[in-house]
Amino acid sequence: MGTVTEHLTLAEQAALGSGATFWTTKEVGDVPAILLTDGPHGVRRQAGSATDHLGLARSEPATCFPPAVGLSQTWDPELVERVGAALGAESRALGVQVLLGPGINIKRDPRCGRNFEYFSEDPLLAGVLGAAWVRGVQGHGVGASLKHFAVNNAEDDRMRVSSDVDERTLRELYLRAFEHVVKQARPATVMCSYNRINGVYAAENRWLLTDVLRDEWGFDGAVISDWGAVRDRVAAVAAGLDLEMPSSNGVTDADVVAAVESGVLDAAAVARSAGRVAALAARVTENISGTATFDDEGHHQLAREAAARSIVLLKNDDDLLPLTPSSIAVIGGFAVSPRFQGGGSSHVNPTRVDVPLDEIRHRAGEYPVSYAEELTAQTLATAADADTAVVFLGLAAEEESEGFDRTHIDLPVEQLHLLSAVVQVQPRTVVVLSHGGVLRLDEVADLAPAILDGALLGQGGGSGIADVLFGAVNPSGRLAETVPVRLQDSPAYINFPAEDGHILYGERVFVGYRWYDARDAAVTFPFGHGLSYTTFEYTDLSVDVHADGLTVRVSVVNTGARAGREVVQVYAGLPVSRVARPPRWLAGFTGVTLDPGELREVQIPVAREELGYWDVRSGRRLVESGDYSVTVGASSRDLRLHTVVAVDGDAVPVLAFTPDSTLAELLGDPVAGPIVADMLAAAGQQAPTAGLSTAAGADMMRLLGSIPIGRLVSFSGGAFSREQLAGMLETVNRQRS
Amino acid sequence: MGTVTEHLTLAEQAALGSGATFWTTKEVGDVPAILLTDGPHGVRRQAGSATDHLGLARSEPATCFPPAVGLSQTWDPELVERVGAALGAESRALGVQVLLGPGINIKRDPRCGRNFEYFSEDPLLAGVLGAAWVRGVQGHGVGASLKHFAVNNAEDDRMRVSSDVDERTLRELYLRAFEHVVKQARPATVMCSYNRINGVYAAENRWLLTDVLRDEWGFDGAVISDWGAVRDRVAAVAAGLDLEMPSSNGVTDADVVAAVESGVLDAAAVARSAGRVAALAARVTENISGTATFDDEGHHQLAREAAARSIVLLKNDDDLLPLTPSSIAVIGGFAVSPRFQGGGSSHVNPTRVDVPLDEIRHRAGEYPVSYAEELTAQTLATAADADTAVVFLGLAAEEESEGFDRTHIDLPVEQLHLLSAVVQVQPRTVVVLSHGGVLRLDEVADLAPAILDGALLGQGGGSGIADVLFGAVNPSGRLAETVPVRLQDSPAYINFPAEDGHILYGERVFVGYRWYDARDAAVTFPFGHGLSYTTFEYTDLSVDVHADGLTVRVSVVNTGARAGREVVQVYAGLPVSRVARPPRWLAGFTGVTLDPGELREVQIPVAREELGYWDVRSGRRLVESGDYSVTVGASSRDLRLHTVVAVDGDAVPVLAFTPDSTLAELLGDPVAGPIVADMLAAAGQQAPTAGLSTAAGADMMRLLGSIPIGRLVSFSGGAFSREQLAGMLETVNRQRS
Repeated sequence: MGTVTEHLTLAEQAALGSGATFWTTKEVGDVPAILLTDGPHGVRRQAGSATDHLGLARSEPATCFPPAVGLSQTWDPELVERVGAALGAESRALGVQVLLGPGINIKRDPRCGRNFEYFSEDPLLAGVLGAAWVRGVQGHGVGASLKHFAVNNAEDDRMRVSSDVDERTLRELYLRAFEHVVKQARPATVMCSYNRINGVYAAENRWLLTDVLRDEWGFDGAVISDWGAVRDRVAAVAAGLDLEMPSSNGVTDADVVAAVESGVLDAAAVARSAGRVAALAARVTENISGTATFDDEGHHQLAREAAARSIVLLKNDDDLLPLTPSSIAVIGGFAVSPRFQGGGSSHVNPTRVDVPLDEIRHRAGEYPVSYAEELTAQTLATAADADTAVVFLGLAAEEESEGFDRTHIDLPVEQLHLLSAVVQVQPRTVVVLSHGGVLRLDEVADLAPAILDGALLGQGGGSGIADVLFGAVNPSGRLAETVPVRLQDSPAYINFPAEDGHILYGERVFVGYRWYDARDAAVTFPFGHGLSYTTFEYTDLSVDVHADGLTVRVSVVNTGARAGREVVQVYAGLPVSRVARPPRWLAGFTGVTLDPGELREVQIPVAREELGYWDVRSGRRLVESGDYSVTVGASSRDLRLHTVVAVDGDAVPVLAFTPDSTLAELLGDPVAGPIVADMLAAAGQQAPTAGLSTAAGADMMRLLGSIPIGRLVSFSGGAFSREQLAGMLETVNRQRS
Repeated sequence: MGTVTEHLTLAEQAALGSGATFWTTKEVGDVPAILLTDGPHGVRRQAGSATDHLGLARSEPATCFPPAVGLSQTWDPELVERVGAALGAESRALGVQVLLGPGINIKRDPRCGRNFEYFSEDPLLAGVLGAAWVRGVQGHGVGASLKHFAVNNAEDDRMRVSSDVDERTLRELYLRAFEHVVKQARPATVMCSYNRINGVYAAENRWLLTDVLRDEWGFDGAVISDWGAVRDRVAAVAAGLDLEMPSSNGVTDADVVAAVESGVLDAAAVARSAGRVAALAARVTENISGTATFDDEGHHQLAREAAARSIVLLKNDDDLLPLTPSSIAVIGGFAVSPRFQGGGSSHVNPTRVDVPLDEIRHRAGEYPVSYAEELTAQTLATAADADTAVVFLGLAAEEESEGFDRTHIDLPVEQLHLLSAVVQVQPRTVVVLSHGGVLRLDEVADLAPAILDGALLGQGGGSGIADVLFGAVNPSGRLAETVPVRLQDSPAYINFPAEDGHILYGERVFVGYRWYDARDAAVTFPFGHGLSYTTFEYTDLSVDVHADGLTVRVSVVNTGARAGREVVQVYAGLPVSRVARPPRWLAGFTGVTLDPGELREVQIPVAREELGYWDVRSGRRLVESGDYSVTVGASSRDLRLHTVVAVDGDAVPVLAFTPDSTLAELLGDPVAGPIVADMLAAAGQQAPTAGLSTAAGADMMRLLGSIPIGRLVSFSGGAFSREQLAGMLETVNRQRS
């Protein structure tokens, strides 16, 4: 890397670091220009010369796959990789070298306007699916752009807001999925986000872009900016940003040159970034052929498959679903004008769109399928007369989008009135939901006997919904995000949106199900939830502990009458830990497809690091010794089998004792303890334990034990000198090292 | 101030800044030594020469008044001031010049082991009662020590932990009561706490001890350290600490001298602190007489009055209370060995202790009063035979104390079993609770028809309980702290205790009822709750808005058959605010005592600043213009009357626009708006509003509006130069200033 750029001038190197146009880089010397374009759930190749980052202008037709909010519900990296591969093929066909995706930010708050572009509230799920997406796209020689790095979990004031987060939370939640994808799938680029992290803009954040991303994780691609995210190009280059997008018309290239010439910026940093942009261009253009096309019919079928697989069967009382051909009253506008993607830069111009009503009619065959939208006497009469009503509910496009956050998570009240009225006349009512962000569903769940959660399904959603309604596809989707009872119950409720440019991540690692489980709070539908038209039983859990982690084995049997796919989820826990941990966290998962009566043992590997926490003392992930709970379930709250395994922890670095070390810490140490006790005795003091055998004595020990030993200079009334304590600490530390 | 110390040498000045012994300062030149001793709910004058900050050694007998957890439930500054005056008189009699209290830290989490020494979860209530206490004590020439300054809301690892809090939360919650007391009652000293605040030890925190305390609030007393809180005396003196306690045997005095001589520390800082210690000594010794005694019988009667007034009648189904003389089964060990104060430095050696059982027997007259403690068949038979059972429940002393935090808030399970069994045989069961920290009470409330919350009542608690049980005192206490349904519901549940030396105040200003109300969460008993043996009705709410705030007038009528005292609470709210505010907050309160049938109009002044929030942009408290809700209630959730008043806000300083100002901010400004729109038009761009009349257009406006104008250099494809934007901003800022 870098050889191509060695003979470039400083000005040429600087020029490589910013766009030529809204969507392209510059051709400089031997380095070709490349085209980057929006994703992630379809290729948004701008038609003509339009400069549009906002999804307003028309783009070339491309397959609209389910956005991340839908696709994540498959919990299936193999399927996600196939979708990624199709996106790679379409990128090739449309002349796109870098497709801007996947978006893997954690869904911290249900109100975040861009949640529809993200995978999950859980970093393992987001990381596994994100890596699969990258593998798929990059298998076609097209570069991915892992985004938005990092801690971009709100849209309001996103270009200035500082996400204020402690390091443990950053490492365990908000950086974790990025780490996974970088290490597992080697994305060609990472896109830095608009926001600040603890006060420092992502684009200018050397700790983030260099120390963590490159030095710790080994990222070897190029860091590009989100469009317009660079506020100070010189600071950004120094921090490790390689490519500013879009074009600055050369203004910031000149800034870079001037900064080098005045000594403010290291020329080597500019050369390094230029080298990375050149390497990126080489990587994504090496196998370009001008003749690529894509199989639009095949991709549509994949979009349909992915859509059906993305659907979560939330509720199915009395096995109301699947439907048999019969008379159906279809109600609600989304049945004819489906809501299938989100607003903003990811907006795709689909090659075609399947309409739910048409697909339902097709499946119903000879039987009458009526359609109505509004709540009228006629609508209710038709619903009452039909064998079943299918009511489409959800959020309109203007209610959620990139660029702003929601203020509530409610369905429009008219829709609830409509549903209530329909259910009163037609007990066999199925609800189909369309939405980008999570919805409050308690009332829907109370009213409707059956609910399909379609989230956003892409252009194949109409047929995918029909496939599931009629049982051509047995649903196997699982929620990637908790459905809380009320917005007021959600983790960041009181810390969202930002206030005066700051948003405090006050709930720390307790995001999503980690929060609801820690607080033992009711939810409407838990993380990982999803029903099937068949049933599964779990038996024979066993766990092997080995150097790389755990191997969890469990037998799953299909106890129903249909073939189906079960998503087996492994949750780990550590009840006794030196840090606050959630009761359980997702440590592994796998899918298994079983015929009726079929039993299969599945193996789920749990990487050892999934058991660890981020240790701020030693600046690394640390696995504690302890008895870990291992729980296998069909959701985070449908836990079927449980066991406990002892795991030997990582070696903890010996930290030297200081005057700030407490009496309890010193007395509890095998080396320091006797020395300190002797010192106390020699000074005529008693060790805090002496003579304190009662319960009150134990409490007093806790009180005295918390005193830092250095304070004894004052607090002992002169019984210990500073020199004496320093000498003792030196002795202790020498003997322990 | 300072003249006494002008002729002192540097060494003498330094010597004034640390203790001579565990409890005294040094006599230096003309400056006399003074004696400081623990409070706050009684004088703990150490007998002999014992050096004991932990309440272990015997102290001189003194009246044990209700600890703050009890006294705060009076919601009565007049009574608190009388208790303070008695404490001042006892201090004088015992030769104490500074009494170490009051403790006014906010009760952030129910687990904090020292909550029993603190007043409330609400800063106004804590501030008003704290100021009354200081006025009472200092009226006798004895100095108070306002503590623990600041943000010391946990005991575990208290000598090292950093309380990490944003400034708005500090100013509105954790510093607010201190500000109130400093400004209203001019305490002689403020005691800095052990902990760090945002990483800086309180003792070394110049922002806290000098910038805020002295320069902003005008504090003119001495800052003393909590015992052993000084880690670096030189840094502490530089920060504004005046007196290190206890004695360091001269070691840190030498440090100070050396630091001045080496130029590390400003000699003027040492002189200033010495002057303040001298001024303190003068202030608290000017009217010492050796002949003071105290009226121990009178003080006991005051302790009894305060105890009865501290009791909260939580529940009283079917007017079970007050009791008429009748046969009573008294059950539970606290009836004979009352729990009446907390553990640690505040532990008082009481002059006498009233025993509940004795007092109940006295009141019952001829009727038999049995006593049992344990759950036996005999106990149940006795309970069944009696007219009424009175069951004493609570926490033993060893379950809560200074120095460590609780891990749960449950009553011992045996006590719940006992209560359950008793209630089954005796429906007329009264529960009397004794505890320092808040308890989970849902099960007790489900079981018992009547509950008296005694918290900790001091040495007069036994008679005070009997007074309330039999109606000699009509209870008027109110909860100063919310009783949550479960610990898991509490604001800081997931952020407590500290982790690796840090404790994140992630809930920000949403502490106590502010949290439960914001999240619309159920509680067992709300803040401000307390019943009476009579009933009150509220009518005719009116609110005058004037320059100093509000005057709230409401008529209260005693609609029952007994004289009683009602605590009228005023809550303010501002539904539309630029910052996240709780739905309502306590803005004022007053007590009114009414005979049966009596109606009185009460006036409650609400200081204008109680309507404000801390504005981090301008660094001051700011009252926004808006429609404020004013609600009058008998608790934070028993809201009786409501109105809305328009308040003109404070002038907001005009902040200059910068390249980080967004398009929306500029376009929304009357001066900048047209200029920016013209600039956009001239560049061939449209203002984001142009042509966007649809709902989707409004959303796009939100998205575009969030772009900082400086980003247009890149984001507009070169349509604007940096110089052009800078020139525009200069013009705009000039025209606005």
